[in-house]
Amino acid sequence: SRLSDGIQCRALEIENKPSTSLGMKFELDDVIEAQQFDRDILSAIFEVAREMEKIEKNSRGSQILKGFLMATLFYEPSTRTRLSFESAMKRLGGEVLTTENAKEFSSAAKGETLEDTIRTVEGYSDIIVMRHFESGAARRAAATAGIPVINAGDGPGQHPTQALLDVYTIEREIGKLDGITVALVGDLANGRTVRSLVYLLAKYRNPKIYFVSPDVVKMKEDIKDYLTSKGVEWEESADLMEVASKCDVVYQTRIQRERFGERVDLYEEARGKYIVDRDVLNVMQKHAVVMHPLPRLDEITVEVDSDPRAAYFRQAKNGLYIRMALLKLLLVGW
Amino acid sequence: SRLSDGIQCRALEIENKPSTSLGMKFELDDVIEAQQFDRDILSAIFEVAREMEKIEKNSRGSQILKGFLMATLFYEPSTRTRLSFESAMKRLGGEVLTTENAKEFSSAAKGETLEDTIRTVEGYSDIIVMRHFESGAARRAAATAGIPVINAGDGPGQHPTQALLDVYTIEREIGKLDGITVALVGDLANGRTVRSLVYLLAKYRNPKIYFVSPDVVKMKEDIKDYLTSKGVEWEESADLMEVASKCDVVYQTRIQRERFGERVDLYEEARGKYIVDRDVLNVMQKHAVVMHPLPRLDEITVEVDSDPRAAYFRQAKNGLYIRMALLKLLLVGW
Amino acid sequence: SRLSDGIQCRALEIENKPSTSLGMKFELDDVIEAQQFDRDILSAIFEVAREMEKIEKNSRGSQILKGFLMATLFYEPSTRTRLSFESAMKRLGGEVLTTENAKEFSSAAKGETLEDTIRTVEGYSDIIVMRHFESGAARRAAATAGIPVINAGDGPGQHPTQALLDVYTIEREIGKLDGITVALVGDLANGRTVRSLVYLLAKYRNPKIYFVSPDVVKMKEDIKDYLTSKGVEWEESADLMEVASKCDVVYQTRIQRERFGERVDLYEEARGKYIVDRDVLNVMQKHAVVMHPLPRLDEITVEVDSDPRAAYFRQAKNGLYIRMALLKLLLVGW
Repeated sequence: SRLSDGIQCRALEIENKPSTSLGMKFELDDVIEAQQFDRDILSAIFEVAREMEKIEKNSRGSQILKGFLMATLFYEPSTRTRLSFESAMKRLGGEVLTTENAKEFSSAAKGETLEDTIRTVEGYSDIIVMRHFESGAARRAAATAGIPVINAGDGPGQHPTQALLDVYTIEREIGKLDGITVALVGDLANGRTVRSLVYLLAKYRNPKIYFVSPDVVKMKEDIKDYLTSKGVEWEESADLMEVASKCDVVYQTRIQRERFGERVDLYEEARGKYIVDRDVLNVMQKHAVVMHPLPRLDEITVEVDSDPRAAYFRQAKNGLYIRMALLKLLLVGW
Repeated sequence: SRLSDGIQCRALEIENKPSTSLGMKFELDDVIEAQQFDRDILSAIFEVAREMEKIEKNSRGSQILKGFLMATLFYEPSTRTRLSFESAMKRLGGEVLTTENAKEFSSAAKGETLEDTIRTVEGYSDIIVMRHFESGAARRAAATAGIPVINAGDGPGQHPTQALLDVYTIEREIGKLDGITVALVGDLANGRTVRSLVYLLAKYRNPKIYFVSPDVVKMKEDIKDYLTSKGVEWEESADLMEVASKCDVVYQTRIQRERFGERVDLYEEARGKYIVDRDVLNVMQKHAVVMHPLPRLDEITVEVDSDPRAAYFRQAKNGLYIRMALLKLLLVGW
Repeated sequence: SRLSDGIQCRALEIENKPSTSLGMKFELDDVIEAQQFDRDILSAIFEVAREMEKIEKNSRGSQILKGFLMATLFYEPSTRTRLSFESAMKRLGGEVLTTENAKEFSSAAKGETLEDTIRTVEGYSDIIVMRHFESGAARRAAATAGIPVINAGDGPGQHPTQALLDVYTIEREIGKLDGITVALVGDLANGRTVRSLVYLLAKYRNPKIYFVSPDVVKMKEDIKDYLTSKGVEWEESADLMEVASKCDVVYQTRIQRERFGERVDLYEEARGKYIVDRDVLNVMQKHAVVMHPLPRLDEITVEVDSDPRAAYFRQAKNGLYIRMALLKLLLVGW
């Protein structure tokens, strides 16, 4: 009968599902820091990200990660990043276990070590996406876990998927990654985003990097030394207009009030100094773009949003494709 | 072989899934307020809600919204409403991204505007269900989003799906919506529920509305004026027993303590004044029902629960069907 | 055409899905306390748990519970337990509604009774997994709900799935449940885990139980009297080394600081008294195992982890299989 056929058919599909043997193994076991990625692997990941974009736009209900379970182990809340990863997993047919206050069930609360927590959670899931308040936590988790770990930000440390989506966005918007000129603007001292981005940009040919920031939040020496050692041209400037006129990318960041403690005066001075507004747009080249890791306050004025060169919401969306690609690669390979 | 047939078949289903072209487009792009709905569209939605009831009861594992992703963006927690929407989505095969403390990742926390948050979240999902503490927030979200937005309550503003499920429940329980007599009891000054319900009831022929409330929380003048302007008969009464004996529906509401601030004495006086108990049931007509938006405290006594005229838990369940219907209509049309 | 075939086929599967009639009804309607289980039913459940282990390991994407919806109604957070249940449900193809702060939408917050909350939530789901801070809450929920309820811990009361996974682990690790010798170590006064475990062990032939605990947290008289009345041999001992050398299972537990209030001195004295370390391992038999309900602090030293007799992470994983089995049994029967 049709009924029994239907049942037999479904059973067969489940038992023989070849999902884990679809492709060649991904070179990485975990995604912990931006330094893991070289030009070639970035290029290959970006190609997968473009496939993911097609899947997200055209074939509703992809089953590529059907039957896989991702645990989002967030020791500090970051709704934006969490939603992006969870959307990525679900867009590929995978499932999610969510913990937005992981702090409560581990070290902080009852004294359990991160390692013990990981050993438990890896028993419930196929991949762990972790955000932690301590630098190095993701590496420790990866060392313990027998399943892949993705670092979704570990305190002042790394946030590698943000760095990847930034580079992916530059390639998508500008059309190339060699020979580009990028201005990094705003809080360069505390932003792990810009630090990771600089590391990745240094892997490409002839980048030119401008640092434009208030004095209190200047780019630190270690990064400048790194760039110099790699032969990358960089320059500090106090003139955003002049820099903006020469760049392919103006990468604006938020001045984070929490970094200034009691010194509200220094914060207020810093935050108002470099604003991307219509005047900046006016001097920018036609093909250039404005990027921002979001959230923004008023460091980019709302009037900029309607300009086609405002790339920051497209950039956020690219985060989805990059995360889809990484989940796919870590779980089922190329 | 059967195996390869099965796999080919599944692939085909995914690629060609015609889910977005199943029906005619729904007339509304978003669900923001009760005033959007007229008699005809309500009637059509209620028909879909009845189909949804059949699906929920009979065909486990509906795939009507397979591959669709709903984001529940809750700026204040409302577990009941959130679960109802998420159940509705999942009963139709859809998936959910949950944020119960959206406040933390937006304006309130880092100063991001609601509009920026919406632009990010719309990149991760196909529909946004939003609850907010500010009147008008849902409308602002809908104006920004390129995907449908459902208002799940915006502060003292609207809660349109509650209003729809109330009217749907009256039709299901009483069998008609024209010529009915409804008593609204309790906190009529602060309850957005009763305000929205009154707007919708005014769309039907010859309703008769009684307002029964303690003096401190009487129905406000704007609603009374509105009813008068529409030619709807209404009356204030202090005699719940007499009113109950004449009504099709006794719609009880909770006196909200938080509205009284320091004046605990006024709260205590108000909350004990009109209780629906066995005595009220005894004077009610056989076909009449007791409704309540829940949660209740003691404004309906527990002894009422076992009476078949206690409709409030059926009413809560109807919320599921109404939300299934709206999700279906907004995402795949009629 | 192939397309219409595909659609017809899917429709058929949905309409005729025989998932609820696959097996004989499970004997229990709810899982409330360890005392509900006798030897025979435990044995049968453990067989299902072993099937679940095979499914989890081999057939990615089981659909056994496809179309079923579990509500995790947690009145106090317990991420570990919640994730274990949610993973179990999702590993079987089921879906989940999550509430980790149920307190906020019920009694505690607005004064709604547990019974009213249950009546609402049962309308949105097929099974309720509840954690509550009050002993007896799960029983009350089960008495109200028309759908199955699983107690995931109710305050100082019961945590039956933990007890089941403990017994299951002993059987898996030692190979039998009759004639075993178990040392219960640590906080025996406050741990509901060890109390439930003792009840279950008493159902087997010739168990021998050692209680090893600091004086302030000794096993209470009711349990000792119960064992004596059942003819179970038990003994209190202050010599962990001697006991460990004789046991099949050393079941260590955490001394819970919160039980000691202001008496930090008593806590510090109690927690350091009985530690499972390499010295204890050295006297243990080759086939014996160390168990722990987790989380642990330093009552088992990290050096023990690499010994094959360290069974506590396998034990945590067994919780997944037991919960998969119970969900399967309660929702679709044997």
